[in-house]
Amino acid sequence: MTTPLTIPRILLALLLCVSLTARGEDGYRLWLRYDKLNDAALAKKYSSTLKYILLEKESPTLLIAQKELNNALQGLLGTTIGNTHSIQAGTIVLGTPASSPVIASLAPRDKLGAVGNEGFLIYTTTVKSKLCIVITANQDIGVLYGIYHFIRLLQTQQSIQSLSIASAPAIQLRILNHWDNLDRTVERGYAGFSLWDWHKLPGYIDPRYYDYARANASIGINGTVLTNVNANAQVLTDLYLKKVAALADIFRPYGIKVYLTARFSAPIEIGGLKTADPLDKDVKVWWKNKIDEIYTYIPDFGGFLVKANSEGQPGPQNYNRSHADGANMLAEALAPHHGIVMWRAFVYSNEVPEDRAKQAYNEFKPLDGSFNNNVLVQVKNGPVDFQPREPFHPLFGAMPKTPLMLEVQLTQEYLGFATHLVYLAPLFKECMDADTYTHGKGSTVSRVIDGSLENHKLTGIAGVANIGNDRNWTGHPFAQANWYALGRLAWLPALSSETIAEEWIRMTFSNDEAAVHALKEMMLRSRETTVQYMTPLGLHHIMGWNHHYGPGPWIKDKPRADWTAVYYHQADSLGVGFNRTARGSNALAQYTPEVQKLYGSPDTCPEEYLLWFHHIRWDHKLSSGRTLWDELCYHYYTGADSVYHMQQRWNALESKIDRDRFQQVKSLLAIQHQEAIWWRNACVLYFQTFSKKDIPAGLEKPDKSLQYYESLEFPFAPGIRPKW
Amino acid sequence: MTTPLTIPRILLALLLCVSLTARGEDGYRLWLRYDKLNDAALAKKYSSTLKYILLEKESPTLLIAQKELNNALQGLLGTTIGNTHSIQAGTIVLGTPASSPVIASLAPRDKLGAVGNEGFLIYTTTVKSKLCIVITANQDIGVLYGIYHFIRLLQTQQSIQSLSIASAPAIQLRILNHWDNLDRTVERGYAGFSLWDWHKLPGYIDPRYYDYARANASIGINGTVLTNVNANAQVLTDLYLKKVAALADIFRPYGIKVYLTARFSAPIEIGGLKTADPLDKDVKVWWKNKIDEIYTYIPDFGGFLVKANSEGQPGPQNYNRSHADGANMLAEALAPHHGIVMWRAFVYSNEVPEDRAKQAYNEFKPLDGSFNNNVLVQVKNGPVDFQPREPFHPLFGAMPKTPLMLEVQLTQEYLGFATHLVYLAPLFKECMDADTYTHGKGSTVSRVIDGSLENHKLTGIAGVANIGNDRNWTGHPFAQANWYALGRLAWLPALSSETIAEEWIRMTFSNDEAAVHALKEMMLRSRETTVQYMTPLGLHHIMGWNHHYGPGPWIKDKPRADWTAVYYHQADSLGVGFNRTARGSNALAQYTPEVQKLYGSPDTCPEEYLLWFHHIRWDHKLSSGRTLWDELCYHYYTGADSVYHMQQRWNALESKIDRDRFQQVKSLLAIQHQEAIWWRNACVLYFQTFSKKDIPAGLEKPDKSLQYYESLEFPFAPGIRPKW
Repeated sequence: MTTPLTIPRILLALLLCVSLTARGEDGYRLWLRYDKLNDAALAKKYSSTLKYILLEKESPTLLIAQKELNNALQGLLGTTIGNTHSIQAGTIVLGTPASSPVIASLAPRDKLGAVGNEGFLIYTTTVKSKLCIVITANQDIGVLYGIYHFIRLLQTQQSIQSLSIASAPAIQLRILNHWDNLDRTVERGYAGFSLWDWHKLPGYIDPRYYDYARANASIGINGTVLTNVNANAQVLTDLYLKKVAALADIFRPYGIKVYLTARFSAPIEIGGLKTADPLDKDVKVWWKNKIDEIYTYIPDFGGFLVKANSEGQPGPQNYNRSHADGANMLAEALAPHHGIVMWRAFVYSNEVPEDRAKQAYNEFKPLDGSFNNNVLVQVKNGPVDFQPREPFHPLFGAMPKTPLMLEVQLTQEYLGFATHLVYLAPLFKECMDADTYTHGKGSTVSRVIDGSLENHKLTGIAGVANIGNDRNWTGHPFAQANWYALGRLAWLPALSSETIAEEWIRMTFSNDEAAVHALKEMMLRSRETTVQYMTPLGLHHIMGWNHHYGPGPWIKDKPRADWTAVYYHQADSLGVGFNRTARGSNALAQYTPEVQKLYGSPDTCPEEYLLWFHHIRWDHKLSSGRTLWDELCYHYYTGADSVYHMQQRWNALESKIDRDRFQQVKSLLAIQHQEAIWWRNACVLYFQTFSKKDIPAGLEKPDKSLQYYESLEFPFAPGIRPKW
Repeated sequence: MTTPLTIPRILLALLLCVSLTARGEDGYRLWLRYDKLNDAALAKKYSSTLKYILLEKESPTLLIAQKELNNALQGLLGTTIGNTHSIQAGTIVLGTPASSPVIASLAPRDKLGAVGNEGFLIYTTTVKSKLCIVITANQDIGVLYGIYHFIRLLQTQQSIQSLSIASAPAIQLRILNHWDNLDRTVERGYAGFSLWDWHKLPGYIDPRYYDYARANASIGINGTVLTNVNANAQVLTDLYLKKVAALADIFRPYGIKVYLTARFSAPIEIGGLKTADPLDKDVKVWWKNKIDEIYTYIPDFGGFLVKANSEGQPGPQNYNRSHADGANMLAEALAPHHGIVMWRAFVYSNEVPEDRAKQAYNEFKPLDGSFNNNVLVQVKNGPVDFQPREPFHPLFGAMPKTPLMLEVQLTQEYLGFATHLVYLAPLFKECMDADTYTHGKGSTVSRVIDGSLENHKLTGIAGVANIGNDRNWTGHPFAQANWYALGRLAWLPALSSETIAEEWIRMTFSNDEAAVHALKEMMLRSRETTVQYMTPLGLHHIMGWNHHYGPGPWIKDKPRADWTAVYYHQADSLGVGFNRTARGSNALAQYTPEVQKLYGSPDTCPEEYLLWFHHIRWDHKLSSGRTLWDELCYHYYTGADSVYHMQQRWNALESKIDRDRFQQVKSLLAIQHQEAIWWRNACVLYFQTFSKKDIPAGLEKPDKSLQYYESLEFPFAPGIRPKW
């Protein structure tokens, strides 16, 4: 007898799974996933409120807003929303007073006035007894930002009854820095290669450029520096400017301005001049002409980001001129076009026998007041270089006459590349919330960079992008959250890391409450975990040589002392740590007295900065009652264990996460765990050669020798310039 | 009065379009698109025949086959097909006689015997009056190939009534050569960067690796050389072999073996030896141990591809040994593991004052008979280097005792990179169908490489991959067809270019008859068009220096004469062309007398090879009645015009093609047209400096000067090794 099998439920589930995989969750859509809401009741409720869209006058930006809203509503609610020419019950009214008579008749001018050029209002109102939602702004771009905010409300399943939202960005320039080279390699890039397919531009427009612009607009990012700070002058030639212009044309309706990095020696390299002296007349003329030319291609070109006289880059000091001389020369030529200069403070020299952490302050503080008013000085969050943890940069608060821009790194150069799950909002917030005390308590870095502390109108924040041409943009699915966090914090620095994480999780993964809770905890703890297994207690820059992959506390004897690890940890038989007090490099003196007092004594210095500021004896007792050596070990072991717990937590979510991303993150967490143990073992074994103490009882002994770890080589670690 | 607008049809269409775009046709699915068939009647007919799947015993490969079939049927027909344990009416029975008693009882042993290890049978049969379809083979991989064949029948809307198909590959090794470097740059790659994310391997398995394997299995490709022929020895270290093994594990159930390129000097570079002399005992031992080690990681490792003593690569000649000495040394160590060596015949030296087209023959022909029996010599289709058109390589037929493998290039190094639409099957076929006359008429290159002419069992064909990490794999949507064509031709060289194009179009774009017809014509003419606007009448290697982007007939004075264009075109005041007759380099003598006779006289030589073999006077009259100069001009102009016609043809298909790909190809064709005019103008102006003749009346004059074209520089053209 032959009987057909009925298909068991499990098989059906598998088949559905297969079919999903055919167009699986590849991460390409980022947080702009408009899949149908699982909460059908809520979707129905939304649908009953959202019936029509009214857009009275079209513009490129408003059409994008309308299309995005249509698309989101169709996806999230599964219904097609009609357009209307007049207000019905359930109409979403889009536009600016200038473009829409309906809005002009409805919009509260005072509230609109308060949100400026980029802000928006979203509010529920009744017109002729018809309930509708108005999304309005002073400029079209504000409407687009409002649309994305509104969509976010739906994606995160919030109430849209009685809306009354006014929102405006706290910081004016919200910018991504791409360290992308013209050959499409990306310095410190771990998510594939550059998005910019220079060879095919301007003729071929990769559809991805539009999705890049959408993603940025959705989180309020309004500028992008296309090229590496280690710059190539070729991008300023006619051939490339046409390509840049094609990108600028795409980004413009999304409110995104294009910026380039200016190689200081470009007048020599592509201009045929003998010098790049910023005070030389021909050099000035060359830059003026070049900049005028750029604006013929890109009428709203944003300006230049410049790395000068740092790590081998040319700059004004080659001609015995100051950073201000260099910046002002460019700024002068940009000013008539309303362009700006972002001049990086990340400078240090091996010819200066001074603690590297002090050099930027020493060079830049004396220049305060000498920069033109369209120059910002761009300062990294910490005084060394994007470490897992650094104290805030002493320049914040120290240059009151100069607008300072904060530079943070999204790409995880020192934080596990694209294989470690590290949510960076807590790192950004730690810096932004730090108190400089320059105008008394409450003089936070946030208030420096949003201009409120020293009354600057020109304000900015930059994130070094973690974006490449990987299908999911950032390599690690969770690294998307760091891109997201930059945009959200740049708009509203007061947002908590937790709020941002929750928004992102709901939009990117799931609205399931248990999943949201678990993922949020994983994310919020992740950065501290990474600090623990890499550089606990204020240790810093003990990564592998050059590529910065993995531990390398033994790195020494390199071309520059400040490119070695031993320079930073200063371990010896007595103890470990960099003495930056008055008895050491006295970097501490660059901070206000209040900060000096806090950090100046091992007794008051928060333990997370202890070895940043102090050389501490191995047997020094810490707050836990343990010696420094034991505490160091416990941190390393706890860090590695925490990754294990993160793995368990993730595994428990299998049923709540799509199969592709579940598997990807599972593999990545396994790598992270393996590498956390590598960090732990290598560092504990290395520092043990100084402390001569046992690893505390109960902690598993490393299964490999220090020699083994020291012998590891990674000739093709990603993110460094290829060598041939 | 307020009236809601009804949504006009056009708007609805637009909205649907928007929603499609959200998960638009990004090209990722290649020809394995399983969207629902448009022909509902046919889908219904298929559904009535295809109701159950019977798979008696599972294996990794058979599970893939089952899953793929389920997935395809669900997508194409929109119905879920159940599994059964016994034959019902409408059952598809999968398996081998060894794995399935049902199959063992049904399968015709004689027919199965005839299809070998990789072939398959698909036939309709009746069991106990129940109509079913059997897909069977001697090995699991044959079943998988059969499944893909069966799915193709559905995708291309063919009848599945009374099936009786027996198919087996004509060529044993069907291989992709990836010129991928360990830093993920790809030599001559124009579709992004390497798929192989070496840094994250083996821990992180990109889902794309599975889709790569699926795509290859679906067209019968059964081997992949992961690394560049300009090899790096690091891939043979423990660190990398673990990564290679991870890829091999993924590819294995898809029937794909992994191969590597062996850098001949590896014993020195990673082995610490002083020499790499293939007759040195220590060198032999080193390779034996290394190869044994490889097999501990990858038990079915395929073997090595070697580029030696060519373009700066090390090789046995560094030690005064022959290519055979080098190849045999490796072959000996591989033989116990059933591994093979593919030794490239692409060698030439600037120290040899001899026509580069002759050198491979001169070096290799004398070695015929001296290679071990697990060595193949891999020969490019033509004697120079993957030009738009070359005569077949004279080694084909000239080494009867040695298995010769054909190497063709899918990546369009000399054919417009990834921006020109060039369907390459006609190029491959031109070589394969060429008659060497070595055993009389009918001694085609196909019969050399399929082993039938000289009775070789070991046979192979290799395509230099055009695959990168672009979302659509190959950059140009139509370049996917060249990957597809390689697989199909390797399986069945008798397939026509037209058949292959039609299959691919139906699977990749549309079954709409008008669209199929138009696309097929575009594809079939495209290669001849490219020859016309680049290198008509037998011209060759007049591309831009180094990057090979755009025209460069003026290239001269480079480190090697045979890296210049003037070496190849030999233009002077009298005429143009490379005299390869007895009065010239006599490369012609490397062919059989029949071929010599055909090509030896300008009167009988097909005009497409004229300037390859002859230096022809500018005023020589050709078959058209035109002078050479006029004919050359007409070819260049016709080529550029043909691209314009291709654009028109494409534009007319707008309603039949998805929006994303329509737009992409439209942009790419515009680039191609622009570059075709560039080629035309630059070449005509350049050759005019010799011919001193006017461009024929009626042809538009170039709008730029020769100096302009000569001045163009492309410092970051893709596909060459980055320089810093």
